[in-house]
Amino acid sequence: MKNSKQRYRGILAYDGTNYFGFQRIPGRRTVQGALENAIAAVTQQHEAQIVAAGRTDAGVHARGQVIAFDCEWHHQVDDLWRAINANLPRDIALQNLGTADENFHPRYDAVSREYLYQFYTAPIRNPIRDYTAWHVGTTVDLEVMQNAASLLIGSHDFASFGQPTIGEITVRHVMKAEFHRGTQEETEGMIYFTIIASAFLKHMVRRIMGTLVRVGHGRLSIEDFEAAFRAADNTRTGSTAPPRGLILMHVSYDEEPLPE
Amino acid sequence: MKNSKQRYRGILAYDGTNYFGFQRIPGRRTVQGALENAIAAVTQQHEAQIVAAGRTDAGVHARGQVIAFDCEWHHQVDDLWRAINANLPRDIALQNLGTADENFHPRYDAVSREYLYQFYTAPIRNPIRDYTAWHVGTTVDLEVMQNAASLLIGSHDFASFGQPTIGEITVRHVMKAEFHRGTQEETEGMIYFTIIASAFLKHMVRRIMGTLVRVGHGRLSIEDFEAAFRAADNTRTGSTAPPRGLILMHVSYDEEPLPE
Repeated sequence: MKNSKQRYRGILAYDGTNYFGFQRIPGRRTVQGALENAIAAVTQQHEAQIVAAGRTDAGVHARGQVIAFDCEWHHQVDDLWRAINANLPRDIALQNLGTADENFHPRYDAVSREYLYQFYTAPIRNPIRDYTAWHVGTTVDLEVMQNAASLLIGSHDFASFGQPTIGEITVRHVMKAEFHRGTQEETEGMIYFTIIASAFLKHMVRRIMGTLVRVGHGRLSIEDFEAAFRAADNTRTGSTAPPRGLILMHVSYDEEPLPE
Repeated sequence: MKNSKQRYRGILAYDGTNYFGFQRIPGRRTVQGALENAIAAVTQQHEAQIVAAGRTDAGVHARGQVIAFDCEWHHQVDDLWRAINANLPRDIALQNLGTADENFHPRYDAVSREYLYQFYTAPIRNPIRDYTAWHVGTTVDLEVMQNAASLLIGSHDFASFGQPTIGEITVRHVMKAEFHRGTQEETEGMIYFTIIASAFLKHMVRRIMGTLVRVGHGRLSIEDFEAAFRAADNTRTGSTAPPRGLILMHVSYDEEPLPE
């Protein structure tokens, strides 16, 4: 029997506030589940299984999650795209959709990932920001945080910042780790941290962020930060920043990606 | 019997997504209800009734809502402030709290209000922005929108943009009506509209915004916008922008406000 299925590839954005993470968990509201349900509703096929570049945790958001799935569709791909979006809840949206090579794999083929971590300093919580940014009560020293973050650049053992899986190699290559401030009235007090790496260990960005904020508050010296990092021991770094400030921004591939 | 109650005044911020507006409605989740419950829990008095500067609609947010209430409290006002915040849900936060003159009234004493309306243009929804900004699919001509908005400056009959209440005067004084764009990577495509007026009619900012976006899309000429505005007839303007992009930013009084 001829396989008439086609592999599709798309970029997915979501607000993760109301989801138990990307990966399907029976009985839980997950991004994967919502997307698979939408595809099933559109294609009337129940076996479409989504593969994603990153299995984001509960509460983590995405602007540029890359997903792929196989299905049979006899109309234009743009019609499939629109129909899926019409069946998705308001907090998930497929930014584009195209056909892909049958061997394309969003996770194995990815060469780098970019995450954004958003936080803001203010004496009192700003509820309007609280779905997508972490409230840090006391002003941070961004210069010393940037100095600490710059130590992460290059190929290092990130065991200090990752939940280890038995047998998993914990060396990762970090290409960018940069802070900048919001400069407009509407973004006053906002601090943005962009980090790009070949790949990330589980909880790595949130552990880096939580530890860097301790450095920014003067509760951990840059020397102790470096020592804890070099020790490649995850019991020495401590704090994990909350998921709500984290956004998967972009996943890169060797071949040209779809236009965003 | 001596009245030992004191009037308190504070600035309230909230994400209105999960509320049926500010004003208490029996059986509904409202901002007023949540705040009154928090005060009752802290003071063990059940009669504290909140008065606010603006009764924001369902889904509308606030950064600088001004509220007042009377209660008996025998400790420091900062302790009352902290205790109320500890009893508020995550999407409401009292930014400050101080004592006020017994005649202070947040609505009657206010001399002007500032609202911010946030929207963004993008071919596809960005769910991370959707709680606090309106998605407008097609690019808008901001210059022509600004020209139209500038017509609103001064004292005018705003009946075209307000839901009229029988007998209510519909003349308002608009001091500022300005657009600007997001200029950072994180705010790309964002458009901010700041409007300050003596007071606003019900739905006035959202109707102005919805109509200005029609102008920005070339579906309503600036001449027709002006004619509809001058006609002071609310059947001629049409569109109402959704509540989720609207934020009550600031309320001004003749006396010096509390530090924010």
